[in-house]
Amino acid sequence: MEDTTRPEEEHQHGQELSAEEWRREEVQRITRLVEDGDVDSAVALLSELHPADRGEALLAMESGPLGETMARLTPEATAEVLEFVDLEEALALISETDPAVLPRVLDETSLDVAADVLRSLPPSRSLEALAGMSDAAEVAPLLGYSDESAGGLMVPEFPAVSAHMTAGIALDVLRLLGPDAEEFASIFVVDSEGRLLGSITVTKLALSPLNDVVRDIMHPEVVSVTADTDQEECARLMDHYGLRYLPVLDGDRRLIGIIMLEDVVEVVTEEATEDMFRIAGIAGERVMGPFGSSVRSRLPWLYINLGTAFLAALVISFFESTIARVAALAVFLPIVAGQGGIAGTQTLTLVVRSMALGELSSTRGMRLVARELLLGLLHGLLLAAVVGAVAYMWMGTPVLGAVVGAAMLGNMVVAGLAGSGVPLLLRRLKMDPAVSSAIFVTTFTDVLGFLMFLGLAALLIEWLV
Amino acid sequence: MEDTTRPEEEHQHGQELSAEEWRREEVQRITRLVEDGDVDSAVALLSELHPADRGEALLAMESGPLGETMARLTPEATAEVLEFVDLEEALALISETDPAVLPRVLDETSLDVAADVLRSLPPSRSLEALAGMSDAAEVAPLLGYSDESAGGLMVPEFPAVSAHMTAGIALDVLRLLGPDAEEFASIFVVDSEGRLLGSITVTKLALSPLNDVVRDIMHPEVVSVTADTDQEECARLMDHYGLRYLPVLDGDRRLIGIIMLEDVVEVVTEEATEDMFRIAGIAGERVMGPFGSSVRSRLPWLYINLGTAFLAALVISFFESTIARVAALAVFLPIVAGQGGIAGTQTLTLVVRSMALGELSSTRGMRLVARELLLGLLHGLLLAAVVGAVAYMWMGTPVLGAVVGAAMLGNMVVAGLAGSGVPLLLRRLKMDPAVSSAIFVTTFTDVLGFLMFLGLAALLIEWLV
Repeated sequence: MEDTTRPEEEHQHGQELSAEEWRREEVQRITRLVEDGDVDSAVALLSELHPADRGEALLAMESGPLGETMARLTPEATAEVLEFVDLEEALALISETDPAVLPRVLDETSLDVAADVLRSLPPSRSLEALAGMSDAAEVAPLLGYSDESAGGLMVPEFPAVSAHMTAGIALDVLRLLGPDAEEFASIFVVDSEGRLLGSITVTKLALSPLNDVVRDIMHPEVVSVTADTDQEECARLMDHYGLRYLPVLDGDRRLIGIIMLEDVVEVVTEEATEDMFRIAGIAGERVMGPFGSSVRSRLPWLYINLGTAFLAALVISFFESTIARVAALAVFLPIVAGQGGIAGTQTLTLVVRSMALGELSSTRGMRLVARELLLGLLHGLLLAAVVGAVAYMWMGTPVLGAVVGAAMLGNMVVAGLAGSGVPLLLRRLKMDPAVSSAIFVTTFTDVLGFLMFLGLAALLIEWLV
Repeated sequence: MEDTTRPEEEHQHGQELSAEEWRREEVQRITRLVEDGDVDSAVALLSELHPADRGEALLAMESGPLGETMARLTPEATAEVLEFVDLEEALALISETDPAVLPRVLDETSLDVAADVLRSLPPSRSLEALAGMSDAAEVAPLLGYSDESAGGLMVPEFPAVSAHMTAGIALDVLRLLGPDAEEFASIFVVDSEGRLLGSITVTKLALSPLNDVVRDIMHPEVVSVTADTDQEECARLMDHYGLRYLPVLDGDRRLIGIIMLEDVVEVVTEEATEDMFRIAGIAGERVMGPFGSSVRSRLPWLYINLGTAFLAALVISFFESTIARVAALAVFLPIVAGQGGIAGTQTLTLVVRSMALGELSSTRGMRLVARELLLGLLHGLLLAAVVGAVAYMWMGTPVLGAVVGAAMLGNMVVAGLAGSGVPLLLRRLKMDPAVSSAIFVTTFTDVLGFLMFLGLAALLIEWLV
C-alpha cells in the first residue's frame, strides 16, 4: 500500500524531531483526543499513520477508548494493523472488535495472519468468524498447523511458474497476479505436479532475454522444510544459508507455502526471550500480561525451589551442634553458597544459550566441562584467598579462614562442573535443559557447598571454638 | 553464485537423511579426511558445499588441520565462506589464513564484510591487508564506523536510479550493473544530489509500462537512519515497519548505504544473547572463547557479589548471639534468602528484557511495580504458609514457624519491589539496567531478608529457645 506519512516531518513547533519522538507525540496526541471524547479526529489521524504506528497508538489506549476507536475504524484499516503487530497484540485489539465485523477484517488480512488469529481464539468464536469469511476455504487448511511450526509461519499463496516457461511468459504470469505479486522478490519454479524445482529472483527474470527458458536460468532449490518443522529450526536455516524465503513442502515434495524472512525475525526475538525466561522460571510471561498467568508460571517454580532449599537446609541441620558451638559459621554460610550459586548460573546461562544457538555439539561438550572446571578452580582460588583472609581478620581464627577458603574453592569447582555438566546431561536425556538445569545446578552448589563448609568445620571444630 | 548441492541427497547407505544429518555427516567426513592427511580430497568436498556449510566444516576442525586446509582453498572459496559466518567465526578462520593471501580474500568479499574484518584485526595487520587490496578505496571509508552501528551494518554499494528516468531506462541501468544487482529486490530512487527520494521493487519496475516515470510509480521513502544509529534501533525499526531494506543517510540526506534484513537477523540474536549474558555477568563471552576473556568478564562480577555477600553477612553477624541460642535459625536462613533471590531474579529478568524490547514505557513503570508488589504479596503468603508449617513441624516451635513465615512474606514483597523498582530507577538514572540491577536486587533481598528474619527472631527470642 502507498504510504505518504513522513515521520521526520517538522513538528508544528518548528523543530525537527527524530522519528521516534514524532511517533511518541502522535500517539499521545491521539490518545488525548480519544480521552477528550473526540474520537472522530483521532480516527482521522490514525488512518493517516503507517499501520505499524497505528497499531502502537491503539495499543497505548485504555480499554474503553480503544473499543470506541476500533468501532470507528474501517475493516481495511484494522486489517492493515494486524499485519504489523505480533499475535498477542493482535488478539488484544480483536477483543475490542465487534464480532460481527471480525470476518470482514480477517478477509482483508493475509491468510497466514488470519490463520494465526483464528487458531488463538476460543473455538466457538473462531468458528463463528470463519463461517462469516469469504476466504474461509483458503484459511481453513492452515488452522491444522501449530502456531510455532513452519505451517503456522508460512504464506500459502505465492507466485509460481513452470520450469518450461520462457522468461517473458513468466513475467506475464506475474503481471496477471496483480499487486499481490509485488510482495515477492523471488518466484518459485514447480513441475506439473506442483513439486518444487527451484527459484528465480524477479530481478534475474526481468534482466534475462525474454526467450530464455526458466529451467536454464533458475537457481535449483536446495533448502526446504516441511509444515511440521519447528519455527526455531526454520529461523536457524534461514540465518545459516542467508535465505530471504524458505519453501515449505508436503510429503510429496509439493510446494505448499513460503516462509518470509520478516516473519522469522519476530520468531528469533521470541525464542531468545523464551530462552531467558525459561531459565529464570517465567516462561510464557509478558510484562503486563494477565496476573493469573504470572502466578501460574512462577509459583510452581518457587515451590520447587523451596523444596530444594529445604534439602540444603537439611544438610545444615545435621551440623546444628557445630553451629551452636561456632555461631560465626552461620555468618559465612550465605557467602559460600551465594558465590557458588552465581558462578553456577553464569556457566549455566552460557551453556544453555549456546545450545539454543546450535553452537554446542556433543564433542565440544567434554571440552566445555573441562574448561569450566578449570575456570572454577582459578576463580575459586582467587576468591578463596580474599574470603579466607577476611574471615581470619574478622573473626581472628586462622583455621576459620582456612575452612571458609577451602569451602569456597570447592564450591566454585562444583559450580563449574554442575553448570556445564547438568545441562549437557539433561540434553542427552532429551529433557529441556533450560528449565530443569537452573533448579538442579543451584541445588548442587548449595547442598555440596554446605556439606563441604560445615563438614570441614565439624572435623576441625576443636581448632575453631 | 549457482549452488547445486542437494543436502537432502540420498546417502550412500540408501537411506534418505534429513538435511541436518547429511550436513553433520559431511562435516565429519571432511574432518576425518584432513586428520588422515588427505587434505586434497577434503578440499574437493569442501569446494562443493554451500559456503555456509563449508564454514561449518572448517570451524569444526582443530587448528592444525584447519591451517592446512585453508592454505589449499582458493581466495574465492574462502571469501564465500566469510559472507555466511558471523564475525567471531570469520576472525577464527582468518587467523589461519596466510597474511599474504588475505588482501585477495577480502577483495572477493562484499565491502561490508571486508570492513567488519578489518575493523576487528590489530591495526598493523589491518593496514597491511588494506594496503594490498584493490578495493582499498571503497573499503577505507567504512572503517570509521563502529561495528554495532548502522554504518557498520550497511552495504555501501547498491543500485540507484534517478526519479525522472522511465521504467525501461531504470531496467537498463540494472542490466548494466550485472550480477551484483541481482542481490537487490528493491532499487533506490535519488535526486541529482544523491538524496533519497524513494524506492521501488524490481517486480513493480518489471511489470510497469516501460514509459512510466519512476517518480510516479515509486514508493516515497519514509524510514531511514544515519550511520551512527545503534544497530539495535535499526533492527527494531525494520521489525516494526516490516522492512526488507533500511536506507542509511548522511547529514545532507544523501543515501550512503543500505541495511539488509538478513544482516539484521544476526543482530537480533546477538542483542538478545547479550541481554541474557549481561544479567548473569558474562557479557561478551562466547562458549568456547578465549580463557582469558571469561576470567576478565566473570571475575569482577564475582568479586562485586562477594562484596555484597559480605554486606549481608555483616547483618547476620549482628545477630550472632541470637543464632548461638537458637541454632535452628541458621537452618532456615538460606531458605528465606534463597526464595527472595529467585523471585527477585524472576521479576528482574522480565523487566530488563521488556525494556530491551521497547515494551516498557515510563507510564507503565509505576503500574508494573504495583503489579509485582501484589504478586510478591500473593506468592509470599502462599510460600509463608508452607514454610511456616514445615518449620513448626520440624522444630516443634510454633513461634519459629510464625517468624519464618513472616520473614518469607516480607522477603517476597521486597523481591517484587526491588526486582521491578531497581531496573526502572537505573534506567531513569541513564545507567545500564541489566548489569547493575542483578547485583543490587540480590543485595536488597539478602540484606533485608536477613534483617527481617533475624530481627524478628531476636525480638521473640524468649519464645524460641
